Amino acid sequence: MNLHHALPSEIRELIRKGKLFGHTSGMAKGYVQANVVILPEKYAFDFLKFCFRNPKTCPLLDIAETGAVSFPTYGKNADIRTDVSKYRVYRHGELVETPNDIQHLFEEDMVSFLIGCSFTFEHALLDAGLPVRHIEEQHNVPMYVTNIDTRPSGIFRGPLTVSMRPMTMKEAIKATEITTHYKQVHGTPIHIGRPEDIGIKDLSQPDFGEPVQINEGEVPVFWGCGVTPQSVALAAKPDLVITHAPGHMFVTDVLESQMGD
Amino acid sequence: MNLHHALPSEIRELIRKGKLFGHTSGMAKGYVQANVVILPEKYAFDFLKFCFRNPKTCPLLDIAETGAVSFPTYGKNADIRTDVSKYRVYRHGELVETPNDIQHLFEEDMVSFLIGCSFTFEHALLDAGLPVRHIEEQHNVPMYVTNIDTRPSGIFRGPLTVSMRPMTMKEAIKATEITTHYKQVHGTPIHIGRPEDIGIKDLSQPDFGEPVQINEGEVPVFWGCGVTPQSVALAAKPDLVITHAPGHMFVTDVLESQMGD
Repeated sequence: MNLHHALPSEIRELIRKGKLFGHTSGMAKGYVQANVVILPEKYAFDFLKFCFRNPKTCPLLDIAETGAVSFPTYGKNADIRTDVSKYRVYRHGELVETPNDIQHLFEEDMVSFLIGCSFTFEHALLDAGLPVRHIEEQHNVPMYVTNIDTRPSGIFRGPLTVSMRPMTMKEAIKATEITTHYKQVHGTPIHIGRPEDIGIKDLSQPDFGEPVQINEGEVPVFWGCGVTPQSVALAAKPDLVITHAPGHMFVTDVLESQMGD
Repeated sequence: MNLHHALPSEIRELIRKGKLFGHTSGMAKGYVQANVVILPEKYAFDFLKFCFRNPKTCPLLDIAETGAVSFPTYGKNADIRTDVSKYRVYRHGELVETPNDIQHLFEEDMVSFLIGCSFTFEHALLDAGLPVRHIEEQHNVPMYVTNIDTRPSGIFRGPLTVSMRPMTMKEAIKATEITTHYKQVHGTPIHIGRPEDIGIKDLSQPDFGEPVQINEGEVPVFWGCGVTPQSVALAAKPDLVITHAPGHMFVTDVLESQMGD
């Protein structure tokens, strides 16, 4: 089976049956992939409120009903307990387990959130002929913790994390125009040009991921990053929070071309 | 004091002091006015999820922290217990009281929601030279219960209610273009043209409000309506839900020109 052209339901079934491991990058081409956050219901209202208040960093795609394992729009036949190939389980903010399924942990009071991922808007940038340097260099995107505070909600608070893609200013303006239509996957940039203005001291030392080459005449362009909701959820030290492992995304049934803005 | 040119904080203070009663239409010109829904926290997650799932009918502007009486963006110095000139109090879906303040009812576990209102996009339509018939005729907009279901969330479910403004098809297309930029206040139309397609039998018999004249060559244009979240909240028969009385809106500190999309 060519995973690049497989349907999302086929990818999820292979993962569920234990026949597929590892990163989901490049699989089920054209379909939206999502970040996953699963929390007990007592935290769900404040976390949903956090997403509403911070749409550029926590662009919410879908929420399951309390205790449900599928999603009304992005995965009607999915099972969130088995359909991600690697999970991270945190208790009181500490990583305690990285299982391949979470059937042993999932309770009736759990609420599952799907949050937009930059894969989607990167495809739109590439389609428009704009550079996405970390893809050219075939490694992870550089990410930086900024000095910009997210808007707090209940126990959830903390600094905003951004990802960075260098391009010329003309390209940055075009990229802003394009990402205006991708509000569900981070939308327009947080900042263009001066890293020190948002508390980033050294672009060659990202907090997560790997640095990229910045060519002569290029400026760094910073977008809100899906690491933010995870780091905020961990900083709040809830009894339990379960996320996908980096790169091991939830493959949704919605086409990138169906979301737009 | 000219209320048309007063600041929102001045309007709210007059209401709080019992010096101002009645409808807020035309007050604090240029500032967003909002629908109000106040619920105990046990219902708040499902209601917020309902708003997320039904953005065209329940466009959420702001949420207060649990027990808070002000709003982080739309009313930092507001007091939701006193700053609406008339409230409606429902217990188990039955109207029990229409007080001028709710200090005697507001508890530590209450959550207050501000939901967008069509006043804002009507101003944008008028500015673009488009007709808004019920304003010309100086009465309330006609509203109709449709056969379209909202997307349910927990106990909250029910049909979608729309408001209707007649115009030519050319104007309807322009109005769609304009309201694309007003997602926080219902966004683009739900339907244009054929009332029977959305379960409306007789345009001259609206479920709420008053009918308007439809001129030769005009089509009815239907937008999601802020009555929906209220009717859905009532149909769920929670122990307690408090709303504003129709037309007695919460006057926010945010300019219509600041919201855009």
